[in-house]
Amino acid sequence: MIVHLNKNITKEKAQQLAEKYQSTLFENGKFVLVTPSKVKAAEGELKELAEAVFVTDSDIQLAGKEYISTRREVKIGDITIGGNSKNTLAIAGPCSVESEEQIEAAAKFLVELGVKALRAGAFKPRTSPYTFQGLGLAGLKLLDKMRGKYGLQIVTEVRDSTHADEVIEYADVIQVGAKSMYDHGILHKCGKTKKPVLLKRGFGTTLQEFVQAAEFILSGGNPNVILCERGIRTFETKTRFTLDLCGATWLKENTNLPIILDPSHAIGYAFGVPDLARACIALGTDGVLIETHPNPKEAKSDASQQLNFDEFRKLYSSMKKVAEAVDYKIV
Amino acid sequence: MIVHLNKNITKEKAQQLAEKYQSTLFENGKFVLVTPSKVKAAEGELKELAEAVFVTDSDIQLAGKEYISTRREVKIGDITIGGNSKNTLAIAGPCSVESEEQIEAAAKFLVELGVKALRAGAFKPRTSPYTFQGLGLAGLKLLDKMRGKYGLQIVTEVRDSTHADEVIEYADVIQVGAKSMYDHGILHKCGKTKKPVLLKRGFGTTLQEFVQAAEFILSGGNPNVILCERGIRTFETKTRFTLDLCGATWLKENTNLPIILDPSHAIGYAFGVPDLARACIALGTDGVLIETHPNPKEAKSDASQQLNFDEFRKLYSSMKKVAEAVDYKIV
Amino acid sequence: MIVHLNKNITKEKAQQLAEKYQSTLFENGKFVLVTPSKVKAAEGELKELAEAVFVTDSDIQLAGKEYISTRREVKIGDITIGGNSKNTLAIAGPCSVESEEQIEAAAKFLVELGVKALRAGAFKPRTSPYTFQGLGLAGLKLLDKMRGKYGLQIVTEVRDSTHADEVIEYADVIQVGAKSMYDHGILHKCGKTKKPVLLKRGFGTTLQEFVQAAEFILSGGNPNVILCERGIRTFETKTRFTLDLCGATWLKENTNLPIILDPSHAIGYAFGVPDLARACIALGTDGVLIETHPNPKEAKSDASQQLNFDEFRKLYSSMKKVAEAVDYKIV
Amino acid sequence: MIVHLNKNITKEKAQQLAEKYQSTLFENGKFVLVTPSKVKAAEGELKELAEAVFVTDSDIQLAGKEYISTRREVKIGDITIGGNSKNTLAIAGPCSVESEEQIEAAAKFLVELGVKALRAGAFKPRTSPYTFQGLGLAGLKLLDKMRGKYGLQIVTEVRDSTHADEVIEYADVIQVGAKSMYDHGILHKCGKTKKPVLLKRGFGTTLQEFVQAAEFILSGGNPNVILCERGIRTFETKTRFTLDLCGATWLKENTNLPIILDPSHAIGYAFGVPDLARACIALGTDGVLIETHPNPKEAKSDASQQLNFDEFRKLYSSMKKVAEAVDYKIV
Repeated sequence: MIVHLNKNITKEKAQQLAEKYQSTLFENGKFVLVTPSKVKAAEGELKELAEAVFVTDSDIQLAGKEYISTRREVKIGDITIGGNSKNTLAIAGPCSVESEEQIEAAAKFLVELGVKALRAGAFKPRTSPYTFQGLGLAGLKLLDKMRGKYGLQIVTEVRDSTHADEVIEYADVIQVGAKSMYDHGILHKCGKTKKPVLLKRGFGTTLQEFVQAAEFILSGGNPNVILCERGIRTFETKTRFTLDLCGATWLKENTNLPIILDPSHAIGYAFGVPDLARACIALGTDGVLIETHPNPKEAKSDASQQLNFDEFRKLYSSMKKVAEAVDYKIV
Repeated sequence: MIVHLNKNITKEKAQQLAEKYQSTLFENGKFVLVTPSKVKAAEGELKELAEAVFVTDSDIQLAGKEYISTRREVKIGDITIGGNSKNTLAIAGPCSVESEEQIEAAAKFLVELGVKALRAGAFKPRTSPYTFQGLGLAGLKLLDKMRGKYGLQIVTEVRDSTHADEVIEYADVIQVGAKSMYDHGILHKCGKTKKPVLLKRGFGTTLQEFVQAAEFILSGGNPNVILCERGIRTFETKTRFTLDLCGATWLKENTNLPIILDPSHAIGYAFGVPDLARACIALGTDGVLIETHPNPKEAKSDASQQLNFDEFRKLYSSMKKVAEAVDYKIV
Repeated sequence: MIVHLNKNITKEKAQQLAEKYQSTLFENGKFVLVTPSKVKAAEGELKELAEAVFVTDSDIQLAGKEYISTRREVKIGDITIGGNSKNTLAIAGPCSVESEEQIEAAAKFLVELGVKALRAGAFKPRTSPYTFQGLGLAGLKLLDKMRGKYGLQIVTEVRDSTHADEVIEYADVIQVGAKSMYDHGILHKCGKTKKPVLLKRGFGTTLQEFVQAAEFILSGGNPNVILCERGIRTFETKTRFTLDLCGATWLKENTNLPIILDPSHAIGYAFGVPDLARACIALGTDGVLIETHPNPKEAKSDASQQLNFDEFRKLYSSMKKVAEAVDYKIV
Repeated sequence: MIVHLNKNITKEKAQQLAEKYQSTLFENGKFVLVTPSKVKAAEGELKELAEAVFVTDSDIQLAGKEYISTRREVKIGDITIGGNSKNTLAIAGPCSVESEEQIEAAAKFLVELGVKALRAGAFKPRTSPYTFQGLGLAGLKLLDKMRGKYGLQIVTEVRDSTHADEVIEYADVIQVGAKSMYDHGILHKCGKTKKPVLLKRGFGTTLQEFVQAAEFILSGGNPNVILCERGIRTFETKTRFTLDLCGATWLKENTNLPIILDPSHAIGYAFGVPDLARACIALGTDGVLIETHPNPKEAKSDASQQLNFDEFRKLYSSMKKVAEAVDYKIV
């Protein structure tokens, strides 16, 4: 149950109530309490001090349609997604920042096409210790330089809690990766900023658990959470993962958060990315994440799935047509 | 390895060769031998009598791009899919034939909209013996009547070998369901007709196995096989299955067979069908299967996933726009 | 709901009631009606004519603990499994009958060790048409010969409805394979015999669906159904399937049917079979199915997973010790 | 490729080599370099300075049988597992430390039975922010008290990098949970201690990735890594997860690390834990993790899967018999 407290309640009183009712407390204009989901009615003192009360079915509370029935609006720089915008944000770039030359080639190419958001990882969550682990802080600084020079919004990933503060400082959109989305340390820190957080679904994570991870951030006080479906792990191994578009429609139907789709990581091979990206856009989505690299064969990570610039240019042009057909606009 | 034998070879000789080389033999204008896939070169007598030889990587042979590098064309009545047609066939109708009134309501509605293919099951593969099992032969006869009256192409399912002959007789497109796709009895009989066969992927079936099931039909002598992705079973249970569009792009890239997508069975709930159907069309597909029923709530099977006529009408209109955006045409 | 009708009711009357209440009817000493599971109380005429009534939660009815709270006893020749027997039946043999020499080598070896049930397939459900498909009827006749000569119980598989009658005739235990377990044609025929049916779980089949498939046989009138867990398909591909022992404990807890485990098909590689087989026995099970072949490397199917005779002999000896440790006995 | 450097090489030289060959370096008596796995031969300077060289197939290097062909020995207090010990360590206790009274009840009960290792979580990785999150540092201190009073080895979990140092300080065995096993921050810190690390497999993690996570710790310089299979996520939801015993046999066959099995988290329901635990022991394993709680119904987390003390006592007694049957000993 979500309780909006009366505006004249002090912080001390709010904290007392939170403790008394074993609730999570945050401030967002007003004080908001979130009780365990089994509590289904405000009683006693809580009832008296409540301005509004929202009861939800499950532990999907702040993200649920029972709480906010429309899609939340999130601002990324001066771009709006969600709400009534009917905008589909194109986020593109290489898997990793590898060098200034490489990231600048990507930034320049994307800006010329009209793309406004650049993705690239500085802290890479690799499965093997014997491969490229990312440039770390130096990578963040290169991204910062690209932002300064090209006016791009920077989307970059936090891998674990040890460097969360740096990523939060440098990113315009903080990406929480599929392998890190249960990390309480990261989720807690993301709740304490107001920057948009792109939360990726773990590949073994149910939709319920995924949205509950978003609740950690929302209940920390940050309303700017974007969900990202990027493929789940199934028995099929001809492709790297299985993009769960059925799940994406469920998220649209049952949550109030913007949803971004990532066809590149889902399939893991460049050949299918254009078809899948168009499918994602026709679904009606708040954004797509697509990997493109100046020279995919030489990429230090995810070499197989990144589009080269020619492939991306063609795709980007066709994406606009598909978006129009479903009354959306690529931004 | 696939061997096209010289045109002047007799049937007896072809059969001798098939036995000698442990190969499958069929006739399609010429005699075609398919050897076990481990055989990688035609030698001796086989080499001499071969007109053309195609070596493939795996047991995907007749369906593979190494054999035929373009998509095969399949005719359904006077409609063409595959080849260079850029047609997306809309197949629609209720889950089951329930009564003449019900199926005629659907037939009439669809014909008025311009839909040319009617789907409905007479033999239902149910998971419980205590539920509606379909009208059987009587259902096939009702479908036959609809074809006569409305000129619709009939797509209907064979559940097991015991009634395969009847379905093959009555259907324009023989559907082999997800639960029956390994059934050698059915696959064998489908190989002996020339009618198009819509082969659905089992929900626990890998892409490799799926295409290999198609090989049973193709190597029986029937070139008119259409693959249908209809959702696979994953850990996610908020939706009934997970539509594998990554897999669909793999099939497009690696096989020569037309591909049809079934969003209705994949998600299992009407709410997501329109978004998913548009995504399927934007992917670039040879057809979509969508369930619609005059009164979904009263449906005797799959009540939750069938669209009502208003919902279908709206979807159908939007499907045309999306198809155009990717240079396809809904037929 | 299951209704035992009064003993003095005629067949005609029973059939009338079945039609009136949309129920399944079979005779087993008395007439038994099974209604759709949503019916939760016998009313009117049905109440009057009922001798006993059993209400169940789901469409697991005849197989459920609400109907029969203990494990059913099934007889295979003069061997009993289930009930209070605490017997674990060892079923062993090659994947396929390949020749008289091969099957006799296996039969002789097993009889000398004390194994009483021989498994081998004559109709093989292969994934590719270009591989060995089994000896068919000739294979059944070789198995018949082994039974005559060595007194072994024969466990063999029906692949599809077209040869179900032959398998039912020749087998002591009719095996319905993982790929055929939804086949209504087979399930229907298995319901009309009293021979034990070993029903294998499909690798993409939920426990609920699996037991519901058993309901088709039980409600056909055959009480001798044995469930077999043989591995499900998961994202892990280092092993062929994943043996679901969690599921096996669920079946023990929630159904009244004997349960047999098949480690060989689950893992798909000989190296893990002994450890897994011992784990299966320690779980407390009514039987295990283990593949062994005189010369696994030359096997025409499943070469990688069959134990050679030395490996099997060692395993068999250790199985007895483990069975004893959990108060079971290998038979 | 793993390279043992000559004993007389200085740290500076070793570091130079590591940089030159893009290798990971650690010291364990001698300096050990691990190159990217694509390097298959020591050449030039590296060849000259190598004392021994081990080439492996994949990025399973330090954990692989090509490097060390027998199971590694790990000491937990004065208990040995792995090596030639044939010991199966019983680790038991509640899911979470809830209060001093609760944890002491468990500690006392277990010590009286003869159990030597106590498990309980202080930092709980919960899926919802609105439930009990663990006692944190206070919980660690209670565990420390139990160690002092009862001489138990303490197994407790690190949830994220923010409190890794505290857990490493207080635990005898550092547990890295299923949701945290990709956490580079944690893995890095675990590589810098010599305390045993119990690394749990993520429920969506392949065996290959799982062992590669262990490589992060091993290549950090800590040889005391224990793998723990605790159930993977599959389509089956009647049980919480699916215990992958096929995978456990693969780990035994292909890695040199001790393996512990966790039936409690796998099934998620107390009813199946005893049968599964016995199965685990019969498989031949270096340990089992079993949850038991003084009053499972009141447990603040995982209430459904914890055994009460009577259930545990019975199970523990039967475990000894099963262990003996496979020549192991419960310690």
